[in-house]
Amino acid sequence: MTPEALFEGVVRGTPAQQRRAMAKAITLLESTRPDHRAQGDELLTTLLPHTGQALRLGISGVPGVGKSTFIEALGLYLIAQGHRVAVLAVDPSSTVSGGSILGDKTRMEHLSVHEKAYIRPSPSSGTLGGVAEKTREAMLVCEAAGYDVVIVETVGVGQSETAVANMTDMFCLLQLPNAGDDLQAIKKGVMELADLVVINKADIDPDAATRAEAQITSSLRLLGLHGNPDHAHHDTAIWHPKVIQISALLGQGVDSFWSAVCQYRDVQNANGRFAARRQGQAKAWMWERIDAALKQRFRQHPQVQARLGPATDAVLAGTLPASTAARQLLELFD
Amino acid sequence: MTPEALFEGVVRGTPAQQRRAMAKAITLLESTRPDHRAQGDELLTTLLPHTGQALRLGISGVPGVGKSTFIEALGLYLIAQGHRVAVLAVDPSSTVSGGSILGDKTRMEHLSVHEKAYIRPSPSSGTLGGVAEKTREAMLVCEAAGYDVVIVETVGVGQSETAVANMTDMFCLLQLPNAGDDLQAIKKGVMELADLVVINKADIDPDAATRAEAQITSSLRLLGLHGNPDHAHHDTAIWHPKVIQISALLGQGVDSFWSAVCQYRDVQNANGRFAARRQGQAKAWMWERIDAALKQRFRQHPQVQARLGPATDAVLAGTLPASTAARQLLELFD
Repeated sequence: MTPEALFEGVVRGTPAQQRRAMAKAITLLESTRPDHRAQGDELLTTLLPHTGQALRLGISGVPGVGKSTFIEALGLYLIAQGHRVAVLAVDPSSTVSGGSILGDKTRMEHLSVHEKAYIRPSPSSGTLGGVAEKTREAMLVCEAAGYDVVIVETVGVGQSETAVANMTDMFCLLQLPNAGDDLQAIKKGVMELADLVVINKADIDPDAATRAEAQITSSLRLLGLHGNPDHAHHDTAIWHPKVIQISALLGQGVDSFWSAVCQYRDVQNANGRFAARRQGQAKAWMWERIDAALKQRFRQHPQVQARLGPATDAVLAGTLPASTAARQLLELFD
Repeated sequence: MTPEALFEGVVRGTPAQQRRAMAKAITLLESTRPDHRAQGDELLTTLLPHTGQALRLGISGVPGVGKSTFIEALGLYLIAQGHRVAVLAVDPSSTVSGGSILGDKTRMEHLSVHEKAYIRPSPSSGTLGGVAEKTREAMLVCEAAGYDVVIVETVGVGQSETAVANMTDMFCLLQLPNAGDDLQAIKKGVMELADLVVINKADIDPDAATRAEAQITSSLRLLGLHGNPDHAHHDTAIWHPKVIQISALLGQGVDSFWSAVCQYRDVQNANGRFAARRQGQAKAWMWERIDAALKQRFRQHPQVQARLGPATDAVLAGTLPASTAARQLLELFD
């Protein structure tokens, strides 16, 4: 299909045509062939004016926290409210395993077959940056097709939470009601990214969940007080990250989750931060892709490639200063 | 002076010649003139076989924690033990203020005039990466001149702690005996870098200091348990970061600080991790300089420069996808 035909299918097709065109468009965007890439860029540029209307929701949490159960419950709740829901994923480990956290659609058995839902597994090739780029582009396709809530799921691997927080309007962290879990999230810098912290499986041990809520609330307050302006993800004067308890399995608390999301969106919109966050994300994204491409070109430059091994060995052996090695290699790259 | 003369002065000069040659060598290395840079590279390469014998000690802590008092006490203690001590600094804020955390030598009035000590303020130009590079090179000059303990001080600004941890054998974090300070250090990722945590001013309120020690010990234990292998700075099976109490003002605890440092060095040496850490640092350093230079070249490329503004505007306005903008700009850079 040509970019024009894909555009028509995605934006104006019947539901069945739309679904088919979306799958083909995302596959085209995931391709690394230069001619596909050029067609993909053409498609993206025409789709862009039709995007941006959805709420982009990032959801993260360690394996076992119950992300799939929660996303299924949330998705069905939103569809019942009249929304159309897309679920995407960023899973850098899929590039190693070939599998994907969303590869198995049976994980969300009701949502995955619903006509108002579109579920797409994580792309499974390239670096985290590459995986995130393809997910970001898939998000635009979903928005152009009229999905008004786009959920981007990630598992806590490496820097994938940062990548997801940087492509969504709101980043939600799912936690278990266990002591010490919040410390790991603080350490990894994930707690700091969270606009909303959700304690799942609160029904199993309500006392533990209440203790966890108090602990996380206190941590968030201290993180806000000691905010590092260089990394300020949100202005705590405007929005102080909330903590809520839910039980995704029993379907309890999904409504209060969604009203917290809507409250956040309204506050952000009223202060102009909703649009500002998207602009900042787009600019940062552009630079991230430029940096990654520059480094790849450098490594693939024939003269650099020939000298890189010996220079690295000399640096490791302590016979060549690291900064001198860098300058010598850079001189070859012209 | 030629690189050869500087080499002779630094490595074989009388104490007075050495001090003069060191100052000139470091000034040469700090210069951004291409001919100076070439001479600097020549000098560094000849100095390199004479470096590496010193213990490289990073010291960080927020303003007011008493770093200068501590470093002065430590430096004088080490000189009394027969060592020669160099003190350098990484202060990215000096590029803004033009000043430097070590500019005022009266901060260490006894150490700064001691003939066995060499104190050099932070370079005050360029990015954090540039400042760190110059400090790293100054460290090599000090080592070649026979200083066997090199202390690199930094204040908690931005990513400067990471830069210092990445150029030293051991990273020590000074803390005040205040509740909540440790959380900030955890959040900023600095606690995770620490091989040793020092609670200063312990004499003022011994009970608070003991509470802080217990709190930090518990945090370090949890950080170790929940270690993120991607960012593991040390193998807690080999070295579990220690916490000690001192009073730099009263000179209390400097000896136990130094014996903890020696214990750490011995453990690291016995496991081969001392050399491995330096090798890893050198390689990472080379790549950091390459990345920074590639980005600078890109920004300064005439065609990129002409297109960067309009492309960024289009990305911010939402008329050009960020990834497409990145690819268009990269096509201009050839």
